[in-house]
Amino acid sequence: MYDLIIIGSGPAGLSAAIYGIRAGLKLLVIEKDYEGTGQVALSSCVDNYLGLPGMDGYSMGEKFREHAVEFGVEFLEAEVTSIAKNSSIYEITTADGNKLETKTVLYATGATHRKLGAPGEEKYDTKGVSYCATCDGAFYRNKKTAVIGGGDTALDDALYLSGLCEKVYLIHRRDTFRAAGITVQKVKEKKNIELVLNSTVAEIIGDDKVNSIKLNNKLTGEDTILNVSGVFVAAGSVPSTAAVPADVELDPSGYIVADESGITSVPGFFVAGDVRTKALRQVITAVSDGANAVTSITHYLETL
Amino acid sequence: MYDLIIIGSGPAGLSAAIYGIRAGLKLLVIEKDYEGTGQVALSSCVDNYLGLPGMDGYSMGEKFREHAVEFGVEFLEAEVTSIAKNSSIYEITTADGNKLETKTVLYATGATHRKLGAPGEEKYDTKGVSYCATCDGAFYRNKKTAVIGGGDTALDDALYLSGLCEKVYLIHRRDTFRAAGITVQKVKEKKNIELVLNSTVAEIIGDDKVNSIKLNNKLTGEDTILNVSGVFVAAGSVPSTAAVPADVELDPSGYIVADESGITSVPGFFVAGDVRTKALRQVITAVSDGANAVTSITHYLETL
Repeated sequence: MYDLIIIGSGPAGLSAAIYGIRAGLKLLVIEKDYEGTGQVALSSCVDNYLGLPGMDGYSMGEKFREHAVEFGVEFLEAEVTSIAKNSSIYEITTADGNKLETKTVLYATGATHRKLGAPGEEKYDTKGVSYCATCDGAFYRNKKTAVIGGGDTALDDALYLSGLCEKVYLIHRRDTFRAAGITVQKVKEKKNIELVLNSTVAEIIGDDKVNSIKLNNKLTGEDTILNVSGVFVAAGSVPSTAAVPADVELDPSGYIVADESGITSVPGFFVAGDVRTKALRQVITAVSDGANAVTSITHYLETL
Repeated sequence: MYDLIIIGSGPAGLSAAIYGIRAGLKLLVIEKDYEGTGQVALSSCVDNYLGLPGMDGYSMGEKFREHAVEFGVEFLEAEVTSIAKNSSIYEITTADGNKLETKTVLYATGATHRKLGAPGEEKYDTKGVSYCATCDGAFYRNKKTAVIGGGDTALDDALYLSGLCEKVYLIHRRDTFRAAGITVQKVKEKKNIELVLNSTVAEIIGDDKVNSIKLNNKLTGEDTILNVSGVFVAAGSVPSTAAVPADVELDPSGYIVADESGITSVPGFFVAGDVRTKALRQVITAVSDGANAVTSITHYLETL
């Protein structure tokens, strides 16, 4: 019987493990990938985690891992297929049929960015293609960039980048935006944002790095080439909630509803990191979530 | 005219500065102490900031500072005496009569722990005397410790430490607790917590490190010695809010009311770190606050 089983070994899960061990909890981290550290490992440069400037995501992930290993955190490589609650005990079942019992669960599985599926997208991932303007925008200061999408995130990204970049193209496949009217208005007022509507990305082109994108106009059928150094894909992200019990409240986009405390609608089931409802999905906010969740968890355990 | 003036150069302020610079904001950090990094500098070992294990607080503060300096953050050493808002512009006045204008303010001045004022307290600070059980509890695994105080924090600290320490003495000058009844009940049920009531700390005693405390019983006048390795002072903390405008909402303990967004009751005035209402005052949660606040600030600036 564990005090706490953490599902996910990204920044949120590892931080929670450290806080949990320090609080004297008997805990286990279940991870889908062998020695995984989550999405951060895919980033070419994380420059905004205070104290660790200019570090590639893989090395940062390794540093995080080492910290947890040093603390004696126990890991299990497995895919969680179901989480069931019997009175106040959770039973976690994995794909290989293992069953584990725990008093609390911390769900810290993260989210994945939706891809465009355009040729060149994968090749230039982290070489001009980014899925996070807050993370990578600063690398495109005074350069030309394109944002792909029509929702709130896409328009917020365009506004954010307009303060940094020489020019921002906002590429949208329709001629209307799903984003809030006030945000659309702000985008239209920015002199260095150019809207390119009814258009999809046919190809992302470059040499070592991205240098242009080919767009296809859905109305005229014409192809055009835009010279850009950066392509920010804002096609939404998908929270990883496959094993979340049915009675845990999700928001309309599928994220687990919780504030910074990590307390969900179900007692004993906690959440941390990108998979919860939050404004800013970053390494630092995920790590903070892990710490906060353990505070909530230790308080909860005292009530059992 | 600045986009953002950050008051305070602790972890919250420095993280906000990095996120702000990366977002293209014209910003300034005002700090009371020359090259200050806030309360973290006083910690003997910070072991729970993911990626930087086992680092003394001074070195951690220096690492944080270097990161900000590398980003070209501008610092001003000054004490802020007033913050006035005229239409949508803030005017900040410093003790030396300087006046600075900014569109937004981020208040990140932190909080300080209230001291007991007992002989030996200062001498053994970080050498057995601690003001934060979550921070330092893990260093006293299987040892005897004392918690001083009678409020929620004191009792929460005692419960937290009871999961780690061989024995926890809870020293309180009265015979009733201000803490919630349910928490008092939980404390009384713990076999390794011993209540020592109507008693104050007359002296904290040790050699290199703390090895005991002298208590004075207020009813009998008797002195007793308890052998302990750690003394956790939970006499409350005091948010540093001297220059906060009168219309900013504070909670009953004087903290600035805000959730993780850092948005306060006054538009354009934001808060991050220990000085806001929050459950867990830690380096990592302060750093996360700085990032989150800048997200709120960039959104606000777009509405001006």
